[in-house]
Amino acid sequence: MRYELYYWPGIPGRGEFIRLALEEAGADYVDVAREAGGLDAVAGYLEGETTQRPPFAPPFLKAGDILVSHVANILQFLGPRLGLVPADEATRYWAHGLQLTITDFTLEVHDTHHPLGPSLYYEDQKAEALRRSAAFIEDRLPKFLGYFERILRANTTGREHLVGDTLSYVDLSLYHMVAGLRYAFPAALAAVGPDVPRVIALADHVAERAAIRRYLESPHRIPFNEDGIFRHYPELDRTGG
Amino acid sequence: MRYELYYWPGIPGRGEFIRLALEEAGADYVDVAREAGGLDAVAGYLEGETTQRPPFAPPFLKAGDILVSHVANILQFLGPRLGLVPADEATRYWAHGLQLTITDFTLEVHDTHHPLGPSLYYEDQKAEALRRSAAFIEDRLPKFLGYFERILRANTTGREHLVGDTLSYVDLSLYHMVAGLRYAFPAALAAVGPDVPRVIALADHVAERAAIRRYLESPHRIPFNEDGIFRHYPELDRTGG
Repeated sequence: MRYELYYWPGIPGRGEFIRLALEEAGADYVDVAREAGGLDAVAGYLEGETTQRPPFAPPFLKAGDILVSHVANILQFLGPRLGLVPADEATRYWAHGLQLTITDFTLEVHDTHHPLGPSLYYEDQKAEALRRSAAFIEDRLPKFLGYFERILRANTTGREHLVGDTLSYVDLSLYHMVAGLRYAFPAALAAVGPDVPRVIALADHVAERAAIRRYLESPHRIPFNEDGIFRHYPELDRTGG
Repeated sequence: MRYELYYWPGIPGRGEFIRLALEEAGADYVDVAREAGGLDAVAGYLEGETTQRPPFAPPFLKAGDILVSHVANILQFLGPRLGLVPADEATRYWAHGLQLTITDFTLEVHDTHHPLGPSLYYEDQKAEALRRSAAFIEDRLPKFLGYFERILRANTTGREHLVGDTLSYVDLSLYHMVAGLRYAFPAALAAVGPDVPRVIALADHVAERAAIRRYLESPHRIPFNEDGIFRHYPELDRTGG
């Protein structure tokens, strides 16, 4: 099976959660929008010319006749196919619920620089971004990371994994979250890091996996930048101290 | 199977998307937090005393040994069990993707009154709420509703349904979205309504279904109010004209 990933080129963005799963598994995939004519292909889906079931937005994934949209939905589709989630039903709903919490967390990171929504530029909402970022760093960042720390502590079957005793797509996504926070909010993450040692250790271990390290060092990996979700605006990165 | 729904009492909130599916199907369920001692039961799950797999937040659903969190995850779990989604795999991923778009839409409605996040009161972010609501009404509201209008137009198998030719949990959720918008943003919805006649018709038909009407007229249904997601603050409801 050759998977087709559709996501905006130029940013890691939400597509990166999918790429990490595909890369870890050594899956055969094409990053469509980064090929010649790829943006037209994305538009064909979004505008309903290619399909009667158009996605609302990228990322979406095509696998044979199946089209799947939204990061968490794509990962629950890929999980069993790539060996990145345990087999039992209860655990799959659990993993998907964790991934949906990462979805919410990701949007709150995005909203630190876009508190008034995606219709306006950052430059048009800088004052609001300062206030939202302060609340994020003070309240939401420790709440989300603390939640995943508790999950890791409670998972007695696999201390370095969120789900079961082997690597899952949720571990890969939490790694990406930590990597993004290290880029966007280095001071705030350094301040909260000591309270969430298991989360930091998980992220470090994922980064050391052979397939992931190979990918991170490859030209295919798009660096974080100020057009994506995780943006480093130093004015927003305070420790709250 | 007796389902246990865990959600904050006092607001329809995100729990309402679940209640509508359970009510339409005539399922046996208990709204735990509205029973005596129910809030302690919710806390027991959230704090990890009752389970090693604590949800991040309500709503969550218990079905025998399975615990499922997040609205869209709960609905994809319930869909086949309640006869509220077609059987084929591609359609289930499609329905879940639509539901996740409703999740995003719901959060953007919430953020009209909480653009600086859930850590602050509305009274502490009224000026920002005005700006975010203007962008929501101008840009995001027509974009989301227009998307669902396109889906209804493209679905040649069932003109009054988003997915296939019968009622699904996604139809019920879109009904609730329209009902909430009618409450929170009556002027803005009246302005965009003529552009999305299929969405409005779907909502009206769902409201007329026997089980839904019975539920809406029952004391179990919690009215919209200013502690929930859909809040009627007249100052935020402009037509953009």
